[in-house]
Formats: sequence, structure tokens, C-alpha cells
Amino acid sequence: MANKGLLLVLSGPSGVGKGTVKSAIVKNKVFPFEYSVSMTTRKPRPGEVNGKDYYFVTEKRFKEAINQGELLEYNRYVKHYYGTPVAPVKKMLDAGNDVLLEIDVNGARKVRGKMPDGVFIFLTPPDLHTLHLRLEHRRTESEDVIMGRIRQARKEILVMQDYDYAVVNDTVANAVDHIKAIVDAEHVSVKRVIDNYRKMVRED
Amino acid sequence: MANKGLLLVLSGPSGVGKGTVKSAIVKNKVFPFEYSVSMTTRKPRPGEVNGKDYYFVTEKRFKEAINQGELLEYNRYVKHYYGTPVAPVKKMLDAGNDVLLEIDVNGARKVRGKMPDGVFIFLTPPDLHTLHLRLEHRRTESEDVIMGRIRQARKEILVMQDYDYAVVNDTVANAVDHIKAIVDAEHVSVKRVIDNYRKMVRED
Repeated sequence: MANKGLLLVLSGPSGVGKGTVKSAIVKNKVFPFEYSVSMTTRKPRPGEVNGKDYYFVTEKRFKEAINQGELLEYNRYVKHYYGTPVAPVKKMLDAGNDVLLEIDVNGARKVRGKMPDGVFIFLTPPDLHTLHLRLEHRRTESEDVIMGRIRQARKEILVMQDYDYAVVNDTVANAVDHIKAIVDAEHVSVKRVIDNYRKMVRED
Repeated sequence: MANKGLLLVLSGPSGVGKGTVKSAIVKNKVFPFEYSVSMTTRKPRPGEVNGKDYYFVTEKRFKEAINQGELLEYNRYVKHYYGTPVAPVKKMLDAGNDVLLEIDVNGARKVRGKMPDGVFIFLTPPDLHTLHLRLEHRRTESEDVIMGRIRQARKEILVMQDYDYAVVNDTVANAVDHIKAIVDAEHVSVKRVIDNYRKMVRED
């Protein structure tokens, strides 16, 4: 009777603090979730375990995984590929466990295409949220600074519109509280629980 | 820059404990919300204040309110009419305040038609949630009892499907926690906040 787990996708602009927020969720055991183990072509560092820290594969195997549609998303940083294998994620969700992916906005967009039922959380920089305050006090900043910030904000808002939630990372504690509430609420959303109720009453 | 408030509609089957849950939210100040004052044709009781406890009106005035579309929903209990005037609700929402309506499922359906952006929370009886346990232990109950419960559950599930959230009222404390999470999450949902961000970057 377990409902399927939630695929939680935590993303946002570079430097917004996604990693810090995720670490706080882990450290304070805010809610339980499973880790998705990434696939990479880089060599293991001392102490790293294959299948636990990463799936360490050759570039040939990685490209095969891309071509076979085995990856939810992938990216190349410096000389190496990094990607999220879809099979273990689906297995964890089917077992009723939530899975948290902390990825960049390009990765999140790809995941959205493949897993539209995911819960997409956009972490926003506090200065986007407080931009209106600056606009109301223009005299304290040059026109160039203001215009640059507006252009940047417009880009961020264009990305945000494809997400389900926008959480301001003003303090890590506040961001974590909002994410916890989102997870709790999504677990009782009708679209996620009604199939189980329906299955229940068909058992006659 | 304030976002519009949330219209929170708390409903569910008769006897599920809507009033108790609402009272616990009020008593423990779980989150702030405004009250919607109902309109009624019944006479004020000693101490009741017009415009605070109810808007006390004549039946003629009430029917006029119905015909003019001034009510979000209304109902007749025994000999008197009770309804929710729409104007004060919209005013409170526009001011950025959340409004909580605790109403029966017929009222909720009418509100849904008029205020589709509302947050509709269906309080479910714990025995609906635990019905599957009973079904798995059929020997302990007669076939008639089981079948009657299944028919009732089917009706409840048909109603539930038009709601956003289904909260099990197993304990009042649990139900209140879920409702708090729903309110927190809805306040950071992209569909509710993005217009404000957009307005912000148009101010150049």
C-alpha cells in the first residue's frame, strides 16, 4: 500500500548554496531520503567506493549509457562526464522512498522532461528577493549595477517558471524549513495519494 | 510587493472533525489567518455581534445576495440560511492575508467553481486510511460491514479527487501539522510567487 516516493530536485543558479542546503538536510535528518549515486568517467580518489560514491565507468561505457537512455541527465565538467542513472532512482521511488537530486539548472530541465512528476524546487538568491528594496532605493547604487541585476533577475525568473516551488535561501535554516514543508505537503497531495485509495476499494 | 493571500478551504465528510482541527489551529496559533464572517437569516443569540459573529440579515436580503452572486456558497440548515459573502474574502486575500473556510463538501464544491486558486484540503476519516488493513483481515468482520465500508469509501474518494490535499485525521495534532506544511509550501509555490518576481523586474 506504500505510495511511490517523491523525486525531489533541488536546483538553482550557480553559487546559490544548493550544496549547503542539502548538507543541512542530511546533517539534521530533516526528512529521510535516498541518495542517487552518479556515474562518472573520472578516476576514483583514494577511499572512494564504486557503486557507493560513484559508478566509475569508462568514457565508452558512459557514452553507451547516454545512447541507451540510461541517464536522467548528464554533464561534462573539465574533462570528465557526470550523470544520474535512471534505473536506481526509479527503483527507489517504486519502493516508496524519496530521492533527492541536487543538480544544476540544465540538469534539472532534463530531469523535468523525463520525470514530470518530480517535485522541482528552485533555490533563489536572497538578493533576487530583495531586489525590489534596492529598486526602491536607487540612489544608493549606480544605474549600471541596478540594470545588470535586473537583467540577471530576468534570466533567473525565466528558469524559475518551470519549477514547482521557489525557496529563498536567505538563511539555510529558513530554506530547510520550507523544503521540509514542501516534502510533507507533497506527500499528502491528492494527485499522489488517490491511486492508492482507489486501489484499496477495488479489492472486493 | 505582498503576494495575494491563500484561500484555504478545509472540508471533508460529515463528522470527520473539521471543527476540532480548525479550533486546534486557532488555539495553538499554528499559522495566522483571517476569518470569513458568514451571513445568516437566523436571529442573533445574546452576545452575538452583527458583522463579527455573523452578518444577520432578513431572508429577503439573503435571497437578494444569492441572486446578485454575492455569496461564495450558501446552505440551508433547518429553517435558516447560512452563506459566505465573497467580497470580504476577496478583500482579505488582496491584502495578502490567508483566509480559512471550514465548510461542508457541497459548499467546498461551489467555492472551487468560483475560486479555483484556493487550496482545497480534504480531511479524511482514519478508517478510510486503514480500510486496507481491515480488508487484509476480513475474517474479523462480516462481509456486510466490509462491503458497506467499501461503498462509503468509494463515495469519499469520488469527492476527494477534486481536492488538492488529503489529510488523514488520525490525531488532531498530525492533521494540524500536515495543514501547516501545506500552507507553508503553498506560500512558496512558483505559481503563487512568480508574478511578484515578474513585476519586480519590469520596474525599469
